[in-house]
Amino acid sequence: MQNVFSYQQLFNFTKNIFLKIGCNDTDAETATKALLSADLRGVDSHGIARLIGYVRLWEVNRINAKPNVHIVHETSSTAVVDGDRGLGLVVAPAAMQVAIDKAKIAGTGWVSVKNSNHFGIAGFHAMMALDNDMIGIAMTNASPLVAPTFSIERLLGTNPIAVAIPAGSEPAFVADFATTTAANGKLEILQRKKETMPNGWAQTKIGHPSTNPNEVKNGGALLPLGGDREHGSHKGYMLGSIVDIFSAVLSGANYGPWVPPFPAYVPMPENMPGEGIGHFFGAMRIDAFRTADDFKINMDKWIQRFRSAKTIEGEKKVIIPGEPEREMEAERMRNGIYLLQPVIDELLELSEKLQVAFPH
Amino acid sequence: MQNVFSYQQLFNFTKNIFLKIGCNDTDAETATKALLSADLRGVDSHGIARLIGYVRLWEVNRINAKPNVHIVHETSSTAVVDGDRGLGLVVAPAAMQVAIDKAKIAGTGWVSVKNSNHFGIAGFHAMMALDNDMIGIAMTNASPLVAPTFSIERLLGTNPIAVAIPAGSEPAFVADFATTTAANGKLEILQRKKETMPNGWAQTKIGHPSTNPNEVKNGGALLPLGGDREHGSHKGYMLGSIVDIFSAVLSGANYGPWVPPFPAYVPMPENMPGEGIGHFFGAMRIDAFRTADDFKINMDKWIQRFRSAKTIEGEKKVIIPGEPEREMEAERMRNGIYLLQPVIDELLELSEKLQVAFPH
Repeated sequence: MQNVFSYQQLFNFTKNIFLKIGCNDTDAETATKALLSADLRGVDSHGIARLIGYVRLWEVNRINAKPNVHIVHETSSTAVVDGDRGLGLVVAPAAMQVAIDKAKIAGTGWVSVKNSNHFGIAGFHAMMALDNDMIGIAMTNASPLVAPTFSIERLLGTNPIAVAIPAGSEPAFVADFATTTAANGKLEILQRKKETMPNGWAQTKIGHPSTNPNEVKNGGALLPLGGDREHGSHKGYMLGSIVDIFSAVLSGANYGPWVPPFPAYVPMPENMPGEGIGHFFGAMRIDAFRTADDFKINMDKWIQRFRSAKTIEGEKKVIIPGEPEREMEAERMRNGIYLLQPVIDELLELSEKLQVAFPH
Repeated sequence: MQNVFSYQQLFNFTKNIFLKIGCNDTDAETATKALLSADLRGVDSHGIARLIGYVRLWEVNRINAKPNVHIVHETSSTAVVDGDRGLGLVVAPAAMQVAIDKAKIAGTGWVSVKNSNHFGIAGFHAMMALDNDMIGIAMTNASPLVAPTFSIERLLGTNPIAVAIPAGSEPAFVADFATTTAANGKLEILQRKKETMPNGWAQTKIGHPSTNPNEVKNGGALLPLGGDREHGSHKGYMLGSIVDIFSAVLSGANYGPWVPPFPAYVPMPENMPGEGIGHFFGAMRIDAFRTADDFKINMDKWIQRFRSAKTIEGEKKVIIPGEPEREMEAERMRNGIYLLQPVIDELLELSEKLQVAFPH
């Protein structure tokens, strides 16, 4: 059995799965592009490995394959979008497009989304702005796994922020990061390798430091960026909170401990204050500030200066945000995408269940 | 000699200093409020302790006391403001007001500022939005003291971000934080106490870890939030970079290593690509998304849930961003503001030089 697949092979399989659960052709294609952008960019935890998770949410009727994604309130530069329980992979690009369309006229566009589901990687949506000579911003709240500083309760998700900024002759600057010290996917890798975890990534269920990568499974929590108070974890906590509030308190989605869990077998929280998961998107037209040419000349200069900075002995270069992911994407488009056997096993299970041929 | 002064005493002295260097009455009052908000809120490093620094910049003609702060480009939701080399303490409130005025009509307002100077604490400017039932955002770049991950060069400032979010019966949520693990002011405190510094705050001039709080003075650098790569310093580096780009590449100010230094005796960088220091402000009208009432009910619920979260044994409570600063402000308004003797000595020097009476 092969472990490396071409993008096109995975694309066809994934799209057929989305068609099979009832998505129309356009939505199936959009969702597939959004999902697989994670595999291409090296964020393996958020890509095709999650396909079965999305299908399970559809099976328990928590995902609507035929959503009527629509604006419920708007001004010239803002909107609230109701995702109608659709795939976040479909709702998010639609909402980001609203932000872009508003920016074309008002200079900027800002869209808060309710009643959605997990949307894949934030960077994919933020990058939609680039072709329009706009800065793109995307964030989302997520299932609670993170304890605020001083707390033992999980009240926040890994709540990522992505910002994509166009340049001129240089490739775009694309930042995309969880507001925790480490993402849960990194703990899973250490679990499989049976290795210890650095301090500052997670705490035990009574809030003690730990180097056991199973800690979150055992009732512990991920820690906000910074790790502990002395190293600025209150700043990571603030960042995660801002993402939560912009995504959900502003839109009418669920927030904090009430965000719906991704695993379909985990029961929904009680007394939920909103609808579904929330996202927040922004688009800012460069020439709403200065000419795109002036901006790009200076953005190139910024990138070149940082890339050529003197490094610590032993380090090759200072990394420009988005560079490793872009290189990974080119490499995987060329040489294919490697999948772990447990992921392949789940995709075969899906293939069997939904009667969609898996590439071989 | 007394060490504790009433807010009113410090207000009168500071305003008279600003009048003496040529500010008009309105600007002197605005600058004083902005500067002293740092002392009230407990950010002692950014308050009246810096007054002499601002005067020294005026003496070397790097601050224009009579600026013509004006919009150079705009759309319905954006503007670029030229600060005309004014005090950041005056330019920033003017630019934030432009953002608020635009939000009244377009739903949101976004203003990037060039040709400015240091603006005090970011939180003061962000909080201007609160009375208008708006979310306020403020950020600024600053003199380069921070090395990007893997680098030994100082290419970024502490580049703070402030976000102020109104609530209903609860006080507002006000986050205001540098995008570094620790601010330079914290190192200065440890220097005075002759104590060691935690790992992850700063590195030596060849990029090694250090616990010596004099490291930045010795050619080392502050570290981005996260501290090292293993603890997510690339995320702090990305955040600081986003602040730099929004504040300066978008407006035409200086960025990265070219941001003008705060100490007037430090020579300006060569081949500067822009004008002055840059800031970025945002205002989002709550009811451009959902009714202010619906938002406030949910924001209160968010705050109450986080404040009542179970704590780690020994910790009193989970802190809501802005709460400690608000309590400090009430306490200092009541009991006065304590100044360290070296700060008083500098203020007496200023009093002598500009012939402005110092309270006693």
